[in-house]
Amino acid sequence: LTLGLFGKISTHKTLRKGLGICIITACLCCLVFRTAPLSSRFFSVKCTSSVQYRINPPPQETSHLSPIPLSDNSVLVISMKHASQYENDSKLSVQYYGEKKDVLGRAVLHLTAVEISLDVDADRDGIVEHNNPDKGSWKWGPDGHGAILLVNCDSERTYLKKPDHEQTSITRVSDLKDMSVMVLRTKGPAKLPEGYKLTMHISQGDAESVRVFRTRSPGVMNNSISYTLFNAFVRDFPLVLSSEVLSQEVPYLGGEAEMNFYVEGLRFPDRDFDGLISINLSLLEPIGEALPETPIFTDKVMLRVAPWIMTPNTLQPLEVFVCSTSDNYTFLNGMRNLVAKSGYKLNICHEYMNRGDRWMQNFPYEELLGPNFGYVTRTAENEEVSSLDSFGNLEVSPPVTVNGKKYPLGRIIIGVAFPTATKGRNMTKVVQEFLFAQKVQEPVALFSDWLLVGHVDEFMTFVPASDRKCYLCLLCACPDAGYKLFRGLQNDGHGQAKMFDDEEQITVDEILNDEILQSHNNYVQSCIDWNRDVLKRELGLDDDDIIDMPILFKLVEEMGSESRAVAYYPDMVNMIVLGKNLGIPKPFGPKVNGRCALEAEMCSLLEGLGLRCTFIDDFASYHKLLGEVHCGSNVRRQPFDFKWWNLEM
Amino acid sequence: LTLGLFGKISTHKTLRKGLGICIITACLCCLVFRTAPLSSRFFSVKCTSSVQYRINPPPQETSHLSPIPLSDNSVLVISMKHASQYENDSKLSVQYYGEKKDVLGRAVLHLTAVEISLDVDADRDGIVEHNNPDKGSWKWGPDGHGAILLVNCDSERTYLKKPDHEQTSITRVSDLKDMSVMVLRTKGPAKLPEGYKLTMHISQGDAESVRVFRTRSPGVMNNSISYTLFNAFVRDFPLVLSSEVLSQEVPYLGGEAEMNFYVEGLRFPDRDFDGLISINLSLLEPIGEALPETPIFTDKVMLRVAPWIMTPNTLQPLEVFVCSTSDNYTFLNGMRNLVAKSGYKLNICHEYMNRGDRWMQNFPYEELLGPNFGYVTRTAENEEVSSLDSFGNLEVSPPVTVNGKKYPLGRIIIGVAFPTATKGRNMTKVVQEFLFAQKVQEPVALFSDWLLVGHVDEFMTFVPASDRKCYLCLLCACPDAGYKLFRGLQNDGHGQAKMFDDEEQITVDEILNDEILQSHNNYVQSCIDWNRDVLKRELGLDDDDIIDMPILFKLVEEMGSESRAVAYYPDMVNMIVLGKNLGIPKPFGPKVNGRCALEAEMCSLLEGLGLRCTFIDDFASYHKLLGEVHCGSNVRRQPFDFKWWNLEM
Repeated sequence: LTLGLFGKISTHKTLRKGLGICIITACLCCLVFRTAPLSSRFFSVKCTSSVQYRINPPPQETSHLSPIPLSDNSVLVISMKHASQYENDSKLSVQYYGEKKDVLGRAVLHLTAVEISLDVDADRDGIVEHNNPDKGSWKWGPDGHGAILLVNCDSERTYLKKPDHEQTSITRVSDLKDMSVMVLRTKGPAKLPEGYKLTMHISQGDAESVRVFRTRSPGVMNNSISYTLFNAFVRDFPLVLSSEVLSQEVPYLGGEAEMNFYVEGLRFPDRDFDGLISINLSLLEPIGEALPETPIFTDKVMLRVAPWIMTPNTLQPLEVFVCSTSDNYTFLNGMRNLVAKSGYKLNICHEYMNRGDRWMQNFPYEELLGPNFGYVTRTAENEEVSSLDSFGNLEVSPPVTVNGKKYPLGRIIIGVAFPTATKGRNMTKVVQEFLFAQKVQEPVALFSDWLLVGHVDEFMTFVPASDRKCYLCLLCACPDAGYKLFRGLQNDGHGQAKMFDDEEQITVDEILNDEILQSHNNYVQSCIDWNRDVLKRELGLDDDDIIDMPILFKLVEEMGSESRAVAYYPDMVNMIVLGKNLGIPKPFGPKVNGRCALEAEMCSLLEGLGLRCTFIDDFASYHKLLGEVHCGSNVRRQPFDFKWWNLEM
Repeated sequence: LTLGLFGKISTHKTLRKGLGICIITACLCCLVFRTAPLSSRFFSVKCTSSVQYRINPPPQETSHLSPIPLSDNSVLVISMKHASQYENDSKLSVQYYGEKKDVLGRAVLHLTAVEISLDVDADRDGIVEHNNPDKGSWKWGPDGHGAILLVNCDSERTYLKKPDHEQTSITRVSDLKDMSVMVLRTKGPAKLPEGYKLTMHISQGDAESVRVFRTRSPGVMNNSISYTLFNAFVRDFPLVLSSEVLSQEVPYLGGEAEMNFYVEGLRFPDRDFDGLISINLSLLEPIGEALPETPIFTDKVMLRVAPWIMTPNTLQPLEVFVCSTSDNYTFLNGMRNLVAKSGYKLNICHEYMNRGDRWMQNFPYEELLGPNFGYVTRTAENEEVSSLDSFGNLEVSPPVTVNGKKYPLGRIIIGVAFPTATKGRNMTKVVQEFLFAQKVQEPVALFSDWLLVGHVDEFMTFVPASDRKCYLCLLCACPDAGYKLFRGLQNDGHGQAKMFDDEEQITVDEILNDEILQSHNNYVQSCIDWNRDVLKRELGLDDDDIIDMPILFKLVEEMGSESRAVAYYPDMVNMIVLGKNLGIPKPFGPKVNGRCALEAEMCSLLEGLGLRCTFIDDFASYHKLLGEVHCGSNVRRQPFDFKWWNLEM
């Protein structure tokens, strides 16, 4: 309970100096020596019922009526039992005595007590509790505490859309749900003593990341609002704090009152922002003309901006996105069947919208942006943006435990240049720093620059595996496994079996006799093996948790740069994972007794895990353009049940 | 013990794929199924004495000679007992059998083992131990670990001085002492197998903060070097890594060898730099023409840059700095006597050097910069620099404990604008962020903008106090205490006693009758009380730990801005603290029986703590220019015994 006290002094004005410094401690310690008439040797104290006091150092005498010896460090600690109903409704007086206990003077203190508390939901139960002792700090973990805050990057508007935080006013009641409620609770007389006022303030640094609105009239709210009401509405939720206004007076309502504030997050944690925000409320005391008021009490709350979180393949799908183009009818059909069979919603992005871009991993945000669906972009300055910045190169693992360390939200997987590379492409620093700054899915950097397109989803993916201790399997492209398969076919007399349906048909024997292709795949295998080992180490996986997929690559020369790898036939690891249903690029491998040997191998490898394989023909419309099913689709998934703030940091 | 293994395969080349990924784990796990001839059903293993192997999953049979059933996930885990003396001096062979245990083929692996370890002083005992398991991470606290690194901001050169880290070459052996030694230890054959090489690399981000040199010839070193040797010398310590070169090959010496590297810190922790640096060493494997080599083993070390640390008044002084100007003879004399009496070295900065700037808190760095004496500057961009950025506004408390939390290096004290201020001056963001980023002396922000000069040292300082539980006393300027003193004088009949010696003489009565002065001091008192309370809270002090000094202020109007405060008479709290000797601005207070009443009061307040007061006349040469003894002097002190890395974070 925070009591603000105000003294109007009838005799000795310097007594009031005693108030300023002690109000924060919910009591007023008035340094008695400062106020004593000269040659005072003793003092006594009297007060009205609602006032409590204590003397330091404690006097010998027991009765508070008999004069107490006055020393230079005598301190009178005053507090009050409850807030005042009227200004100056309580009283305390100090009487000073000389050597012979002769009365030298009397100081009377007229007291007004006000209760002030700025509150947030520090225990995250959805209720803004009253004056939580932890409200001013933040702690990670199951035994942690501290309020949280969302970045308001969705758009309540459904036309002329832009992220809500880009506008400095609230235009829809529904937008309030994207903000954290903060309550100012006050209790006291109808108005504050003359000249006193309440002010809310934030630091310059925090102002880059947060905005505060307040409600004018805490009336009933309905969840839709017509645009004719727009202006009236904006008036109802005035902007209090922003990067333009770091400090502003807020009304004191009088009596027992609550006022709601709405805190809006403007940016995610980043290299230069740890995510923590402090908001202060101060009670200002008037001093005199041309002099600034001084705060005599400050209450503080702390909030942390929720990090940007990715959803791994093992989470329940909600809807699937694909593009429709002039030439992907076959692919679209395959996807339609798979999604229908799996029982999820298919969301087709038509040509007028995708403008011919079929790569759903880079889905145009105009479509998705909307209520409760936002986005974040980072802009590279003075650094080269490459194909490694596309989102086929940004994946996330299912939850893992590594040498006892838990990652209940998994770990982000990105592809970068080789640590030893002196040249070559890389994911931009600004994006890498953003990902690391989110903290809750600590990224693992793989080496993907050896690929022409350069995406990690070209050689790895994760599938659910209820039988494994970690409930997941890592699927890795593996040229060695491919060659083993082809040698097996040759050995069983299928050397003349043909790959591909088109003019580029080639036999198993021809593939196995191609020395250059073999040397290229040795190189690819060594690149994948390097990444495979990093994944084992950083995700705590055994060889048993990894399945090697029979996929061959070939190296193509780029103008004036090193040779880089592309899939030799449809890259089966670049799949879409919908629960137990896998949408796998149809490989068009050599036929044995009418069945594709590669499909057969995939099924035998994966169906053991209780997974169902559906092969989707993306040959002409995606594979030929250096992408596959995964690059050409996107999935919105059920968020994690696990609460990010429960992470141990 | 890290063993690098290389296999030259006599039969089946894909066996060598097994090596790449497993070398890091100090053993080579070769995925047997990858190398098996087709239709193999069993296998057996043989090897030379220095080779050890293990089979996963473990076979039923006990003898390693009888054929073992081959499954698709059979893994052969190979390690070696010690490094090789010659290339391929060890051997392992796998024999494959068919259904009827008929021999189908044999794979022979010729092995070379190399021991590689990049080492730092991770336990901080001054010795670079061999392959400390903690060398790759960093942990705060007494049970912590991790190597440390200095910012090389001093100057070995004594003419044409500039901080050493501003030049990219080592010009003096003594400079090596400002860097952290890192040792590359290798053990193996005379040379690496054909095409393999060692490379050292850092990330783009770390390269902004660190530079690595190596020694060419680890010969004997002498601590001085003549400039004729300059070029030869630079050749002896070539630059390995920098922001221009992120990755470079380093020599493999052969046999059992050590090579010294020198790691130089370039910047202190800051808003965008947490102080941690990683340096990697990779063994690269050749793949083929036009293909980049791939790392098959990477060793990593981590270092933390030592923070910038301030030294409080309670630390032992080493030398005192003052300026000599045309008009400060009296002051200089006073200081000379004090420092001589205290037994420390006085270092006078003469006019040709101080160019008329007498404010030692802003001492020209040309003088101090030198061996083991460096500096750091921060440059403000797009923000206004004010008087609050001067160093009289940057102080540090002695060690304190606050609600159980220890600050063994004390806490930095800075003065800023009021939290509620909408205008007014402030310490620049770039400086505040730098101070907070050092972490080990978490700053406390006070309100100092109410002062014309705006420095915290105008109203507070710390003195040692062996009797107090916290071994310190906070001295606060206190107008109330001043008025109490003057009222006492008046009461004892000294109302006509005069302050000051010059034409501005004024009596005690006149001061007490000045209503405006009283109202100004009420305001000043409320500003100081606010700060006093913040200091109590943030440093865990009681009222007993604070002594209020009888000092009056007056408000002066600045052109077009608010009135701000300056000391009415020499500001006695702006003192120099040399052990138990205090150099206090001579206040020229009212004389009572020939003795200055203010000096008498100061002595009675401070001598109780075992401190000795010396009053120094700075009236004309400093006080009149709005500064005092502390602003006009500087002290180099003994560093803390406490090691910053032992802090609990």
